[in-house]
Amino acid sequence: MADPHGYIDRHFARFQEELFEFLRIPSVSARREHDPDTRRAAGWLADRLRELGLAVSIEETRGHPIVVGEWREAGPGAPTVLVYGHYDVQPPEPLELWTTPPFEPAVRDGRIYARGSVDDKGQLYLHVKALEAHLRTTGRIPVNLLFLAEGEEEVGSANLMPFVESDADRLACDAIVISDTSMFGPDVPTIGASLRGLAYFQIDVQGPAHDLHSGTYGGAVANPATALARILASFHDEEGRIQIPDFYDDVNPAPEFVRQIRTLDFDEREFLEETGAPALVGEAGYTALERLWVRPTCEVNGLLSGYTGEGSKTVLPARAMAKVSCRLVPDQRPERIRVLFEQHVHRVAPKGVTVQVHYLHGGLPWRARLGGPLYEAAERALERAFGRRPVYAGEGGSIPIVPEFERVLGAPVLLMGFGLPGANAHAPDEWFDVENFRKGTHAAAA
Amino acid sequence: MADPHGYIDRHFARFQEELFEFLRIPSVSARREHDPDTRRAAGWLADRLRELGLAVSIEETRGHPIVVGEWREAGPGAPTVLVYGHYDVQPPEPLELWTTPPFEPAVRDGRIYARGSVDDKGQLYLHVKALEAHLRTTGRIPVNLLFLAEGEEEVGSANLMPFVESDADRLACDAIVISDTSMFGPDVPTIGASLRGLAYFQIDVQGPAHDLHSGTYGGAVANPATALARILASFHDEEGRIQIPDFYDDVNPAPEFVRQIRTLDFDEREFLEETGAPALVGEAGYTALERLWVRPTCEVNGLLSGYTGEGSKTVLPARAMAKVSCRLVPDQRPERIRVLFEQHVHRVAPKGVTVQVHYLHGGLPWRARLGGPLYEAAERALERAFGRRPVYAGEGGSIPIVPEFERVLGAPVLLMGFGLPGANAHAPDEWFDVENFRKGTHAAAA
Repeated sequence: MADPHGYIDRHFARFQEELFEFLRIPSVSARREHDPDTRRAAGWLADRLRELGLAVSIEETRGHPIVVGEWREAGPGAPTVLVYGHYDVQPPEPLELWTTPPFEPAVRDGRIYARGSVDDKGQLYLHVKALEAHLRTTGRIPVNLLFLAEGEEEVGSANLMPFVESDADRLACDAIVISDTSMFGPDVPTIGASLRGLAYFQIDVQGPAHDLHSGTYGGAVANPATALARILASFHDEEGRIQIPDFYDDVNPAPEFVRQIRTLDFDEREFLEETGAPALVGEAGYTALERLWVRPTCEVNGLLSGYTGEGSKTVLPARAMAKVSCRLVPDQRPERIRVLFEQHVHRVAPKGVTVQVHYLHGGLPWRARLGGPLYEAAERALERAFGRRPVYAGEGGSIPIVPEFERVLGAPVLLMGFGLPGANAHAPDEWFDVENFRKGTHAAAA
Repeated sequence: MADPHGYIDRHFARFQEELFEFLRIPSVSARREHDPDTRRAAGWLADRLRELGLAVSIEETRGHPIVVGEWREAGPGAPTVLVYGHYDVQPPEPLELWTTPPFEPAVRDGRIYARGSVDDKGQLYLHVKALEAHLRTTGRIPVNLLFLAEGEEEVGSANLMPFVESDADRLACDAIVISDTSMFGPDVPTIGASLRGLAYFQIDVQGPAHDLHSGTYGGAVANPATALARILASFHDEEGRIQIPDFYDDVNPAPEFVRQIRTLDFDEREFLEETGAPALVGEAGYTALERLWVRPTCEVNGLLSGYTGEGSKTVLPARAMAKVSCRLVPDQRPERIRVLFEQHVHRVAPKGVTVQVHYLHGGLPWRARLGGPLYEAAERALERAFGRRPVYAGEGGSIPIVPEFERVLGAPVLLMGFGLPGANAHAPDEWFDVENFRKGTHAAAA
């Protein structure tokens, strides 16, 4: 009877029911009206951890609370593992695009559809259930375990970092495990090998003091929208290479990782279909996966100027605005990119306008320090759960807390995610594969 | 006693009171809720013309009515002059920027502040009062006079053109006089020598089928905002010359007019202050007035893509849109520019996106056929009213009906405007100089 894996399979229906309870709580961290729900989700999770006999505290912050659960019965000689996840979710809008309501979990085709199913309640909860399987069968696990769940991941984790700093002693650990990412493909167990960093800017271009008649003034007064277009067009050459001087200086070519990427069986056509774009493009000389995982980007996220309604209005706009973000790869640093970006924009800015660059926020890129007992254990666990060895995949997005965890706590981070490509995290009809919920629980238990 | 000019001066206070009545009618043609007001303005104007003994008809259209007043007592041998103007006005918003309410005319510092004061009720009405001065003193004028006033100038004159075509026989004339433009400066009587034409486009760029996460997809999927920026940046070289192939082919250098422009005493600093821009710029090798009057432009009127709210959102936008309009000079034709523009956009469009160009509307440029009895008479009249010879000035904006009048009616157009620079036509605190209202009346009467 002392078989945690048998326990998981026997109790899996109940695990799923419990997850549904968790998913029904609309813990939308971005919306003030959901503050009671977000707090309720924290309480619900704390209760589940307490039921397993963990010492649980709910740490108040200036925003949503942090839930900390501790099981230290492996003793001071045993390693300590910190499992991090988040109980808050993205806003569900636009609601009309959901097949079933976002906070009424529904199973279709082997998928659990609900806001937060894959990001990140399902992935967080499978660790709780893996612990339960051990404690209810063998009564113990070989490591000390710390659960750290926050309620502000979707709004920038502003209060987590100071907490990690202030409670670093209590959070001291030998490894950090995070299930908040995707698998490379169905049935392909995946370890996250890298994350891109971020530097986010807003460019404001001011021309005349107020909108002008484009006939009466056009030709003699600089147009801020044209000026902005010229600035944005200067960021890349015709082959997609970023033209900001020194931008690539700190890009670590990571030949080992690139070699490994090239062995992955990537279906460009499927990826293209997922995007709905007419063709894949990008920096010359790199494959799509390299462009996504080991090359930095400079992307326009938003544009606004002048008249944007129906029909025509002959206005020479007073202002033009762009949001631009750079995804960074090791060993680029947002502070350095900020300087290079601002210098470049001011250098290429046309005459006759005033240009301001605002740095909104940033985060460090990260690359896993592969090898060692943590990764060896993860490889074994994933192989046992999925029947094949995991692959190492990069991630084009950013999780700024990951490099900070490593910096403050000094322990390596393992990204072991069970989402699938196209799982609609942050989008309508978010789903989590039921089988992956089960296999992930097994992997976490292994 | 048979002195029209003395009559004007004696009755000027009453003229102003009447104009105030006209200005109090909020004949905003763009707003359906003002339809009764717009109709009331037409009726009010028709009554004033009838009081002078004109044969007046109110012509219904699919939109706002056209007012036609005829005085043909000069006889079939005498020339016929058509005076055109419009009784509709721009929307007054934003109301909070008006010093006094837009439809409660107020005189401050010798200016009549009201929506429509200069554009175009005041300038239209001075012709009515000039006619009154003649008929009430000498009982006649030496020409047959046709008043043509429409109520849709501010919304594109869509119903005026078919009316001119269908009633061309009735509107047959030897000259067309329009007071709907500005003077080059205070006390500088001005004859409009040219108007720019227009070709207005919307460019729609489609990338992925829906917004994507800029981390997960950025680098491998073309960004439509970047693509649009590259398209817009391709319109000009670094010195402001338009780079659309063959764009300048039909530009008539008009050396005579340019020579005349260079004699004008233009205060660049004052103009710069009017715009509030940090510096005047434009096509290399031309003065500001040449850039505004004899050179075509290609201006971005609006931009929209992705996330434009506060803070940051890491979205790779699905779409990007720009409104772009070209101001044309003789002998450019909007139909030809449309072809060149569309060809150019499609040629420079980057890979990985789909680009559509929509032609929204256009109008022909115009240059006055100077000389002849009409212009000689205008020069004499303006000199008598203002005490100095008029200058010939271009106009950067467009009045598409002007070239059409000439084409259909075969008569030359005279643009004799009495607005002043900075008079806020289409903007809050529109004003019309009281003295110019008086002098304009004298000029029209001369």
